[in-house]
Amino acid sequence: MSERIRIGIIGYGNIGQAAEKEAASAPDMDVRGIFTRRAPSSITPANGEIPVYHVDDAPAFIPDIDVAILCGGSVTDLPEQGPRFAGMFNTVDSYDTHARIPEYFEAVDAAARQAGTTAVIATGWDPGLFSLVRVLEEAFLPRGTSYTFWGPGVSQGHSDAIRRIEGVLDARQYTLPTDSALDRVRSGDEPILSTGEKHLRICYVVAREGADQAAIEASIKAMPHYFAGYDTRVTFISPEEMRERHGAMPHGGCVVRSARTADNSKQLMELCLKLESNPYFTASILIAYARAAFRLNREGSVGAKTVFDIAPSYLTTRTSEELRRTEL
Amino acid sequence: MSERIRIGIIGYGNIGQAAEKEAASAPDMDVRGIFTRRAPSSITPANGEIPVYHVDDAPAFIPDIDVAILCGGSVTDLPEQGPRFAGMFNTVDSYDTHARIPEYFEAVDAAARQAGTTAVIATGWDPGLFSLVRVLEEAFLPRGTSYTFWGPGVSQGHSDAIRRIEGVLDARQYTLPTDSALDRVRSGDEPILSTGEKHLRICYVVAREGADQAAIEASIKAMPHYFAGYDTRVTFISPEEMRERHGAMPHGGCVVRSARTADNSKQLMELCLKLESNPYFTASILIAYARAAFRLNREGSVGAKTVFDIAPSYLTTRTSEELRRTEL
Repeated sequence: MSERIRIGIIGYGNIGQAAEKEAASAPDMDVRGIFTRRAPSSITPANGEIPVYHVDDAPAFIPDIDVAILCGGSVTDLPEQGPRFAGMFNTVDSYDTHARIPEYFEAVDAAARQAGTTAVIATGWDPGLFSLVRVLEEAFLPRGTSYTFWGPGVSQGHSDAIRRIEGVLDARQYTLPTDSALDRVRSGDEPILSTGEKHLRICYVVAREGADQAAIEASIKAMPHYFAGYDTRVTFISPEEMRERHGAMPHGGCVVRSARTADNSKQLMELCLKLESNPYFTASILIAYARAAFRLNREGSVGAKTVFDIAPSYLTTRTSEELRRTEL
Repeated sequence: MSERIRIGIIGYGNIGQAAEKEAASAPDMDVRGIFTRRAPSSITPANGEIPVYHVDDAPAFIPDIDVAILCGGSVTDLPEQGPRFAGMFNTVDSYDTHARIPEYFEAVDAAARQAGTTAVIATGWDPGLFSLVRVLEEAFLPRGTSYTFWGPGVSQGHSDAIRRIEGVLDARQYTLPTDSALDRVRSGDEPILSTGEKHLRICYVVAREGADQAAIEASIKAMPHYFAGYDTRVTFISPEEMRERHGAMPHGGCVVRSARTADNSKQLMELCLKLESNPYFTASILIAYARAAFRLNREGSVGAKTVFDIAPSYLTTRTSEELRRTEL
């Protein structure tokens, strides 16, 4: 790796801030600018020497940025930003609205092909690493059942849903795999399990003074899609306890494949993550795929790509000769 | 996948027999022949309709075989067979003499490029899947330490080494990860551990009547490379107990990465296998990479390849559209 990869970061929330630091730690990358929809002067990058620009000025930087890391949200930002920036730069993003990934892929692919760029979509750890592992597990063990468990970790979406309930000031929801479900899967029985049977939902809630806690608890437990059908446990805590004990963003999970080979032997394959910081791990994966986007583009492989399309050697700074010598 | 892949199996030991059954179970493959150095009439395939040929007759089948699965051993068979058959067919093998992989790669690569074939070398689970996971883990978590644990499972090489000791009639060696080492690694401490500190070696030995058991035990424990420096435990058993309780070939292990992201958060990533049959899992992986060899060759990507060079989408029978819809 003689040539350095020039990185632009688009969006400066949790993921953007983590991406700045992870890219700065990479031996083959330089962060060339941060692009924001806010007033640039309102942003202070971790490294004060990195310039901050308004996102509308991005087209002027096409000659200066090799890969743009799109750090906006999936609900409103990326559906618009994904195709737009793939029309200017090689990109990588963590788009995660599962049901809309096929149409997002098509939109980004069209923009990237027209511009001659390479855009890695929907990476991070799920979708992303977990998706890759699900496909490897099924390819290597085709006759079996796959299980994805999430947690222990904070679910941002579920925490937000609780916060919208009348009388709730703050909330933090932890998702945990149920031990009994994990044990059954690991025994090789291939049980049929609903998402609700696989997970436990632990909620810490700060209620407004005088609010009806029983009513809040009932509202949480009855919420369709989010909590109904789950083993949900609600604990009311003080604002101080929330601040002191629930500020971190840990997460993790496991992708388990329980299968049988042609001799009827039970074969179990399992990947687990235990993360102290969800956004920093997500950013670290985005950085590896930014490297891949840059290299694929140099080889002329343009258009939208997913983790399924990218060989492991594109993700690392080490040469193939070195990998063969030390990792095989 | 409309076109079917025509498979030849070269060598009919444990792996060859497993590969025959795994290829027969694949929805996109047909086994067209088994090639052996023994008298073909001495071999009875699991499927009696599959023809058995002498290995020297293989060149006549170049038009009839898309991928040859090389199932010979790494010590004497593959160094000769790898380049020879890559000169005729697309191939896949489980060459596992770690120190000689670079020179094996060069020899197979030269033969494959000259013949216009594609040869996937050194796959299976280690080297192979574990190698791939080591590279992914390091790419996604560059600042940390990787640990490979093997077992619980039978080590064929260590069992053979015990059998060569005077007075030993039969032996089976199980390798186990030590719980204390795994626990320390999972705690995120990044300890420095030797292979001996990570593993326990349990030996079951059938001794000749009247043999000096204490001398045998001492010889085992002192054997350099194999047992010296390990916590080695030796138990003498009867030939009947060996037959009844130690006939299976389970194996497994874990590849653990303990690392910190740029915010100093501890991040842990771990892949574990629990296999009732080591040869059938190895064969199942060879089948997935045989599919990749066939497709890469159709795309004009010739030469020797490793697991690092192959994107996940080449391994599965499912289309990229389907993978994006269901696995992201």
